[in-house]
Amino acid sequence: MMSYTLGKGEYENWIVSETTFSPDALAKVESIMYLGNGYLGLRSATEEPYLKERRNFLVSGTFNKFDEFEVTELPNLADVTRLDIRIDGDRFSLELGGTDNYVRQLNLKTAELIRSFDWTTKQGKKLRFNFRRFVSLDNLHLIGMKLEVESLSDSVEVSFESGINAQMSNTGSQHFHEGEKRIYDKRFVELIQTTTESKVDIALNTVHKIVINGKELTEDPDMNIERRNVSLNYNIHLEKGDKLEMEKLTTVYTSRDKAFDTSDYQLQTLRDKALADLRASYNKGYEQLFKESKQAWLDNVWNKYKFEVNSEDPYDQLAIRFALYHLTAMTPAHDNRMGIGAKALSGEGYKGHSFWDTEVFILPFFIYANPEVAKSLLKYRYFGLQGARKKAKENGYKGAMYPWEAAWPTDGEVTPVWGAVDIVTGKQTKIWSGFIEQHITADIANAVNQYYSITGDEAFMDDYGYEMIFDTAIFWASRLEWNEETQEYHINNVIGPDEYKEHVNNNAFTNYMAHFNLQLAMKYYKKLQEEKQALFSKLNNKLNLEAVNKEWQEKSEKLYLPEPRSLDKVIPQDDSYLSLKELDLSKYKAQDKVGGLFKEYNLEQVNQMQITKQADVVILLYLMEQQFTHDIKKANFDYYEPKTTHDSSLSLSTHAIIANDLEENEMAYSLFKKATEIDLGPVMHSSDEGVHAASIGGIWQVAVLGFAGIRVLDGELHINPRLPKHWIDMQFTFYWRGQALSVNITQENLDIVAEDKKPVSFISFGKKYQFDNQINVHLS
Amino acid sequence: MMSYTLGKGEYENWIVSETTFSPDALAKVESIMYLGNGYLGLRSATEEPYLKERRNFLVSGTFNKFDEFEVTELPNLADVTRLDIRIDGDRFSLELGGTDNYVRQLNLKTAELIRSFDWTTKQGKKLRFNFRRFVSLDNLHLIGMKLEVESLSDSVEVSFESGINAQMSNTGSQHFHEGEKRIYDKRFVELIQTTTESKVDIALNTVHKIVINGKELTEDPDMNIERRNVSLNYNIHLEKGDKLEMEKLTTVYTSRDKAFDTSDYQLQTLRDKALADLRASYNKGYEQLFKESKQAWLDNVWNKYKFEVNSEDPYDQLAIRFALYHLTAMTPAHDNRMGIGAKALSGEGYKGHSFWDTEVFILPFFIYANPEVAKSLLKYRYFGLQGARKKAKENGYKGAMYPWEAAWPTDGEVTPVWGAVDIVTGKQTKIWSGFIEQHITADIANAVNQYYSITGDEAFMDDYGYEMIFDTAIFWASRLEWNEETQEYHINNVIGPDEYKEHVNNNAFTNYMAHFNLQLAMKYYKKLQEEKQALFSKLNNKLNLEAVNKEWQEKSEKLYLPEPRSLDKVIPQDDSYLSLKELDLSKYKAQDKVGGLFKEYNLEQVNQMQITKQADVVILLYLMEQQFTHDIKKANFDYYEPKTTHDSSLSLSTHAIIANDLEENEMAYSLFKKATEIDLGPVMHSSDEGVHAASIGGIWQVAVLGFAGIRVLDGELHINPRLPKHWIDMQFTFYWRGQALSVNITQENLDIVAEDKKPVSFISFGKKYQFDNQINVHLS
Repeated sequence: MMSYTLGKGEYENWIVSETTFSPDALAKVESIMYLGNGYLGLRSATEEPYLKERRNFLVSGTFNKFDEFEVTELPNLADVTRLDIRIDGDRFSLELGGTDNYVRQLNLKTAELIRSFDWTTKQGKKLRFNFRRFVSLDNLHLIGMKLEVESLSDSVEVSFESGINAQMSNTGSQHFHEGEKRIYDKRFVELIQTTTESKVDIALNTVHKIVINGKELTEDPDMNIERRNVSLNYNIHLEKGDKLEMEKLTTVYTSRDKAFDTSDYQLQTLRDKALADLRASYNKGYEQLFKESKQAWLDNVWNKYKFEVNSEDPYDQLAIRFALYHLTAMTPAHDNRMGIGAKALSGEGYKGHSFWDTEVFILPFFIYANPEVAKSLLKYRYFGLQGARKKAKENGYKGAMYPWEAAWPTDGEVTPVWGAVDIVTGKQTKIWSGFIEQHITADIANAVNQYYSITGDEAFMDDYGYEMIFDTAIFWASRLEWNEETQEYHINNVIGPDEYKEHVNNNAFTNYMAHFNLQLAMKYYKKLQEEKQALFSKLNNKLNLEAVNKEWQEKSEKLYLPEPRSLDKVIPQDDSYLSLKELDLSKYKAQDKVGGLFKEYNLEQVNQMQITKQADVVILLYLMEQQFTHDIKKANFDYYEPKTTHDSSLSLSTHAIIANDLEENEMAYSLFKKATEIDLGPVMHSSDEGVHAASIGGIWQVAVLGFAGIRVLDGELHINPRLPKHWIDMQFTFYWRGQALSVNITQENLDIVAEDKKPVSFISFGKKYQFDNQINVHLS
Repeated sequence: MMSYTLGKGEYENWIVSETTFSPDALAKVESIMYLGNGYLGLRSATEEPYLKERRNFLVSGTFNKFDEFEVTELPNLADVTRLDIRIDGDRFSLELGGTDNYVRQLNLKTAELIRSFDWTTKQGKKLRFNFRRFVSLDNLHLIGMKLEVESLSDSVEVSFESGINAQMSNTGSQHFHEGEKRIYDKRFVELIQTTTESKVDIALNTVHKIVINGKELTEDPDMNIERRNVSLNYNIHLEKGDKLEMEKLTTVYTSRDKAFDTSDYQLQTLRDKALADLRASYNKGYEQLFKESKQAWLDNVWNKYKFEVNSEDPYDQLAIRFALYHLTAMTPAHDNRMGIGAKALSGEGYKGHSFWDTEVFILPFFIYANPEVAKSLLKYRYFGLQGARKKAKENGYKGAMYPWEAAWPTDGEVTPVWGAVDIVTGKQTKIWSGFIEQHITADIANAVNQYYSITGDEAFMDDYGYEMIFDTAIFWASRLEWNEETQEYHINNVIGPDEYKEHVNNNAFTNYMAHFNLQLAMKYYKKLQEEKQALFSKLNNKLNLEAVNKEWQEKSEKLYLPEPRSLDKVIPQDDSYLSLKELDLSKYKAQDKVGGLFKEYNLEQVNQMQITKQADVVILLYLMEQQFTHDIKKANFDYYEPKTTHDSSLSLSTHAIIANDLEENEMAYSLFKKATEIDLGPVMHSSDEGVHAASIGGIWQVAVLGFAGIRVLDGELHINPRLPKHWIDMQFTFYWRGQALSVNITQENLDIVAEDKKPVSFISFGKKYQFDNQINVHLS
C-alpha cells in the first residue's frame, strides 16, 4: 500500500506515498509522513478523524510531568489539524462512500504533504478533494493547511467545523490547564494554555480563509466555545463545478522559546507576538508561505548535503532522502537546550526523551554534514551535566552520570519504571535502564571526542568538551568496583546495549567504553596541563583534577576488559552470557513484528538465554574499531549475528557497517535495506508510536561510514569506499576540519573537491593522499 | 428512529428502542438508555467504538477536581464496556458492512439493554450478533455484559480485545493517577486507580467467560498492558452455525463506599473485597446475576410504585415508566452523603452536581412514593450545611447559604465560572449563578417543610429539619438590604429561576421564597419554644435563635413582595422586567434546539428584553399556590408563557401543572407531552450530555401533582384529579403520613385504598372525606 515510485521528473525518488486508504495503517503513515522543523512536529493525521488515528502535535522542549508517578514528557498540544467535514449533513469519511484516485504523499524535497482523491457520497454525488499541509522551515512557528473541494456532479452543502481542540492528551494524561479561549474578529481563534507542572505557556492561534470560485467568503461562521475546545463552523453551498478553497494557518509560540525564556517574560508579549505573526501570515497566504518554506528546505538541506545515490534500485536514493528529511525534521537545531527524541517529533513514543541514540546513531551525521548542529546537540549534553551530576549524587557516585533518558537538561534521570506485561506474573515488567544502563555516560564522552576529532573545534572543547570528558571520567572512577579475587576493577550489575540481559557483570561494551572514557580524560588532562594552563587551572579548581587523574591512571590500568576467548576469538558479552543456553531464533526472526518472543517467554526467562536484543559486542567492534583485528571482528559478528533478534531499531545499521567492513557486501546491502524498512517497510504497526530516529541516523551511517567508508581514526581522515554492487555511484558533501569536501564515489573512483581549496590529507586503503583543490583516487 | 411500540405482551409499553443505527444519534441514545442503580451510572455506548460516542462510567460521590482552575466533578472512570471486535481481521462497525434487523432496546422493566442485528462483512459473510448488558440493582457494584455471535454463512475468524481502558477523561481533563494494572490467572483483569485531588481509590475488576457451542474456551488470551490500559485479546474460529457466547462481568468498589470510608481503611481490604466479589459473580454467571437484578427492579420499583396509565396514546404509560426507571437509576439511595446530579448518572453534563432540580423537581416524587429515599436526599443537604455555612461566610453573610451547585457536602459552592461563547466579544460568557442565584437556599427550606408536611416525620425534623430551616432563615435575614427610600427590605443583584435576567433586583420568586423561609423559621421557633424545650435550647445554643427570631419578625414584615399590577394582575418578575422591550419568540420556539437565540444575541442583549428562559413567576404560582388567586394565576400564565423559551428543561412540567390547574386541559396535556419529549423526543442532540433529571421528575409531577391533583396544603391532603381527556384511568401508590395509599382514578371516579387500614382524611374539590380502608369518590 506504500509506494515509493510515484515521483516523476523533478520529484523522481522524492515521493513517499500511500496509494490506497487503509484505516489500519493510519498510525504508521502519520509517523513516517510527519511534518517537522525541529521546533515543532506534527503527525500527519488526516483532517477528518478516524478511530485509530494518533493525532499528535509536539513542540521541542515543552516537557511536563502529569503527576508524581509519571516521568516528564513532551505534551501533546491542542490539535489544529482536525476538520469535521460534512457533505449534505453526513460525516465525510474515507471509510464511508466511494473513493477513487486516492493518493497521500509526502514530497521530501518540498516537505509538503498532499492528499487527493475523488469521493462519492452515499447519494452518488461526486466531489474532488485535495488537501495540502506544511510545517514551515522558514518560520518555525507556522503550520499551513489548504483544502480544495470541487463539486463534480451536483449541488452540495459542505460544512466543516475547525478550530483548536484541547481535548487531546498523552494517551490519557492531561498536561495542560484548560487555559483561555478567544475568538477575535469572528475569525482569529486563540488558545492560551499552560502546562500543569513545568508552567510553560503555549499560545496557539489559527485562522481560516475561504474562497469560492476565486471569491472570498464574507459570511461569519458559527462560533463555538466549549470545554477545552474552540471552533468555527462554516456552511457552504456549492453548485456543480464550484470550487471551494480553504486555507487554515496556525502559529504556535511558547514561553520555552529562547526569545521568551527571559527574566522579564510577560505572557502578554508572547500573546501579542503570536497573534501578530498569524495576522502577518494570513496576509501572505498559503502559497507564498509554502514557497518560503520550500526555499528553506533547498537552502538548508538539499543544497547543503547534496546527497545523491545512483543505484540499480532507485529506492535506495529515496531512502537516503527520507533519512535526511527526518534528520532535519527531528532536530531542534534552533535551541541548544534541547535534544532529539528517540521517536523524533513524530509521536508520543519514548516521551520525547533523548537516549544514547542521539550520540551514537544521529550525531555522526551532524558532525560530518552540519557541524554547527552537532555542536548545539553537544551543548544540550553540556547543560545536561547538571542533571547528570544530580543523578550521580543520587546513586552514590561522583562526577557526571548521564541519565539513560534525558528531557530538560536539568531534570536528570527520566526513564519510566514500568513497562509491558510480564506474561508469567500478570504484572508490569520493571524497566531497569534508568538505574543500571550506564554506558551512555561513556557514549557521550566518546561523542564529544568524535566531534573534536572531526571538526577540530578547539573553542568548543575549551568551553564545554573537556569538562564533559573529565566529569564523565570522574563518574567512572567512582563507579568501578574492586574485585579482591581477581585483583581487578569490575563493573557489576549493569545492562549493556543488549537490554535482554539485565543485572550482568562486566558487559564488554560498557567496560571498554568506560576504559576509553578514562583514557580520554587522562590524555586531555596531560594536554591541558602542558598546553592550556589557565583552562587547566580553572577546571582543576572546579573538578579537583589533580586528585582524580591519579585515580584514573590507577583504576583504568586495572579495569577488566573482556578478552576474546582463545578458542574462537569470541568476546564474552558479559560474565555469564556464554554459559547460558541457546535458543534457535529463526522462528522469531522470520516474524513480521518485534517482541514475538515475549508472547512465549517473559524477560526473566529471556535473561537466561543467549539471546541478544541488538548489537552489543558488535557495536563495540564498530565504535572501538582500532582495538580489534579483522579476525576478531569476523568471529564475533558470526557468533552474535544469529543470536541477535534486532528487536531494537538501533541494531541493523551497525551490523550492516561491520558486515561491510568484513567485505560481506551482499549481507551489508541486505542489512541496509532492512534498516530502511524499519520505517519504510510494509510492517503495519512498526512506526505507530513514531519513526525510529536512531535507525534513520543509521541509514546515513551505513551509506557514509559504511559504503563510502569515511572514518576518522587517530585524528586522520580515512576514506575506504566499498559501494554495494548495486550502486553505480554516490555523491555527498561533508565537513572535515571546517572545510566542506564534496565526494563522488563510483565502483572504481573516488573524487573529492575541497570547497574552500584548503589543504586536505586523508588515507584510503592504507595509502595517504594530500590535495588542496580536488583529487581523484582510483579504487582497484 | 426511536420507537416506543416494540414491546409486546408482558413488555408492552416497557421498551424504549432504536430501530435503525444512526451514528449521529449515538450520544442521545447512550443517555436515554443509560444503565444505573444510583451507585453507578453507565452510558449505553455500544461495545464497538464510534467517533461520536461519549463513553462514560460514573460512580456517585467520587468527586475530584482536575486543577485549581476547574470545579470538582464526577470523574469518568476507566471504561469496561468497549470491545474491539474484528471479523477476519477487519474492524467490526455498523458504519461498515451491511446491517439487517437492527434493534437496540432498553427494557425498562428488567433494566436490560439489548442490541441485536445481522451483519454482513464486506466479503459477504453473514453473522448474527446479540449484545446484552445490565447494571445490577441487586449488587450495586456489578455490571454484566453478554455477547452472542453466530456465524450464519461461512467460517470466520472472530477476535476481540477487551479489558479495562483508563485512557478515558472528562472531555480532556484527567482525574486519575495511572494506578496499578494487573492480570490474575490470565483471566481476572484488575485496575486500581486513585483520583488526583480527592484521593478516592477505585478498584475495577473484570473477567471474561467464553463458550463456543456450549463448551468453555480453554486457550489463554494474549495479554496486554500499556499506558492506562490493560486488555486481553481473544482469537476464535467459528465454522458456519457455530455460536460464540462471551460474558464479561465487572465489579467496581471505591474508598468512598460507606463500607470503606472509615478511619481504619486499608486499600488491600478494598482490593480483596472487589476481586472476591468478581470471583463470586463469575461463578454465578450472567443469567443468574441478571435474574437477581431483575427481581430487585420488580421488588423495589415496579411493585412498589404500581404506576399504571391507561391512555389513548400508550406512549404516555411508557413515558411514566421511563421516568420511574430513570428516577431509580439516578438516585444514590444507598448513601445519604450523596445527591442527584442534574444529568443523573448519565453523562458529564453539569459534572454530577446537584442543583435546586433535586428539591423542586425530583424530591416530590420520593416524598410521596419512597419517603425513605427522600429523607436520604434531605440528609445530604443537612450534611451540606457545612458547605452552605462556608459559602455564607465567604460572601459576608450569616447562616447557611446553599451552593447553587453542590458536590461533596463539605465542598460548598462548585458552580463553574465560564460558559459558552459570547458572540459579540468572542470570549467565554461569565456564569453568575454560583454568585447570585440564591433562591436555592429557600427552595431547600421549602423542601424540608414539604417532606415534613407529607410524611409527618417528626424525628427527621428534630435531628435535621429544624436546624436547616432556622439556618437558612438566618442567611436570608443577613441577606436582606434595607431601602431607605421605600422603607422596605429588598433583595438586589440576583438571578431568579430565569437565568436570562442577571443582576436583577427583587426577583419575585426569590423574594417570596425568602419570605416563606423566614415565616417557616418563625413558625417552628414558636413551636419548639412551646413544645420541645430541650431541642429549642440545643438549637438556640447553636444558632442563637432568640436573637435572630426578632430579626426574622422585623425583617420579614418589611420584606418587599412584588404585588400583581392592578392594571392586569401581572406580577413583575423583577424590578425592571416589565419595562424591557419585547421580542417575538415564535421563531425560536419553533426551532428544534434550545439556545437558537444565542446565535443572534449575546446574554447581555437578552438581559435587556422580556425573554424568560424558564418558569419564573409561573413556578412561584405553583410552589406558593395558596398565595395567589385563580385570576392572578391565569393572568400571569397568559403573560409569561409566550415570553418563555423553555430553554431550560425545568420549565415545561411547571407550565403543564399550572395549565392543568387553570383547566387548560389540552394545553396541559400538550405541555406534558413536550416535557416527556425533552429526552424521548426526536431532537437529535438534546440529551447528548445526559438525561434531564429535573424534567424526568417533572413527568411524574405533571401526572401525580398535575393530572391526579395531589397536593398537601396547610397539612391537609388534597386530591383534585383532572385527567387529560385522552386518559382512561391511572393507578399508583403514594405515601401519606407513613401509610401507602393506592389510588385509581378515572374520568369519573377516584378510588383509594389505605394499605394499612389506618384512618385517612383528605379534601377533593373542596369537600372533606374520611376513611380507614377504602373509599370511592365520584368526580362530576
